[in-house]
Amino acid sequence: MILYGAPMPAPNPRRVRMFLAEKGIDLPETPVNLFKREHKSPEYRAKNSLGQIPTLELDDGTAISETVAICRYFEETQPEPPLFGATPVEKALVDMWVRRIEFVVMMPVGNYWRHAHPRTAALLTQHKEFGESNRETYAGAQKWLDRELADREFVAGDRFTVADICLLSTVDFAEWIGLPLDPAHENLAAWRAQVSARPSASA
Amino acid sequence: MILYGAPMPAPNPRRVRMFLAEKGIDLPETPVNLFKREHKSPEYRAKNSLGQIPTLELDDGTAISETVAICRYFEETQPEPPLFGATPVEKALVDMWVRRIEFVVMMPVGNYWRHAHPRTAALLTQHKEFGESNRETYAGAQKWLDRELADREFVAGDRFTVADICLLSTVDFAEWIGLPLDPAHENLAAWRAQVSARPSASA
Repeated sequence: MILYGAPMPAPNPRRVRMFLAEKGIDLPETPVNLFKREHKSPEYRAKNSLGQIPTLELDDGTAISETVAICRYFEETQPEPPLFGATPVEKALVDMWVRRIEFVVMMPVGNYWRHAHPRTAALLTQHKEFGESNRETYAGAQKWLDRELADREFVAGDRFTVADICLLSTVDFAEWIGLPLDPAHENLAAWRAQVSARPSASA
Repeated sequence: MILYGAPMPAPNPRRVRMFLAEKGIDLPETPVNLFKREHKSPEYRAKNSLGQIPTLELDDGTAISETVAICRYFEETQPEPPLFGATPVEKALVDMWVRRIEFVVMMPVGNYWRHAHPRTAALLTQHKEFGESNRETYAGAQKWLDRELADREFVAGDRFTVADICLLSTVDFAEWIGLPLDPAHENLAAWRAQVSARPSASA
């Protein structure tokens, strides 16, 4: 089994590392050199036609990509501790929250990175005005999340789940690209401090 | 149990209807009037703080939103026939494909609808040039998908899954907003014809 990934600050491989650390699974990452564009090589694209990281290659050659799908594989093969919920309702609510984090929170961060950040400008055609508009969208997402976190400890309820991993990787990446959290959102700040203190957060 | 939704052409409620039809679960939709903006009312937002449809309300008041999360709930409570995969590998691959369909295929369709379509122009601030650029992104996504579908019958493998439901709702919605599939993509056309012929496709 080979886990292709890349070190910080790439947010997606970090999610899988954090998930594995929470599960107590020891699977070191095999680094793909993003600066040399190894993830766009024909060899790598044979494993992942989208040329993205991370990708998990099983011993029979099956390649699983997409962070949450890789995490799902490990949840199914080693259910304890449950990080995708334990009951049908919990499982549905974790799925709901993972999707909300992706579509409502990660989306504007990704759009800003893709369309407004100087670092991607050299590589891609940007729509700068659209890109910049995502600052406001991300601000709105933070406000909404802060309200949601008023009455519970973790994103999807009273238990730490993969939804917390998705959110932490998002806010940390956002900060790295120049979109820090608004410190006025106290529930969000408390959540972040608590989740960042877990040993898995530095995996 | 109440399923809040809306009739065609809204793509998200259709996914859940199609999923329920495949499972043989009879749960009629309780319509939310989108034109009267009932989904943005305080009553509805108490069930779904994002004011989106569909939402599934359980008998104890728990509200589950996000199409795939609602489908996951029914998969967990009634596993047959499996639509999210049966083994750990299948489950991971279905998750991977659902995410690829959302991020690679639905994303440009949604961006075009949100930022370039005349119908949303009256309601929202658009970034038109960015919106229009999504035609090309969607064209690229079709090309990629067509290659992927060359050697298998369904999106995630040899079995019909929720990933096919996500893709069908996407391409049908895209056509409705003026982004038809390129007929040159024969594998994609064959896949679509086959999946559209299932009784669930007209649910």
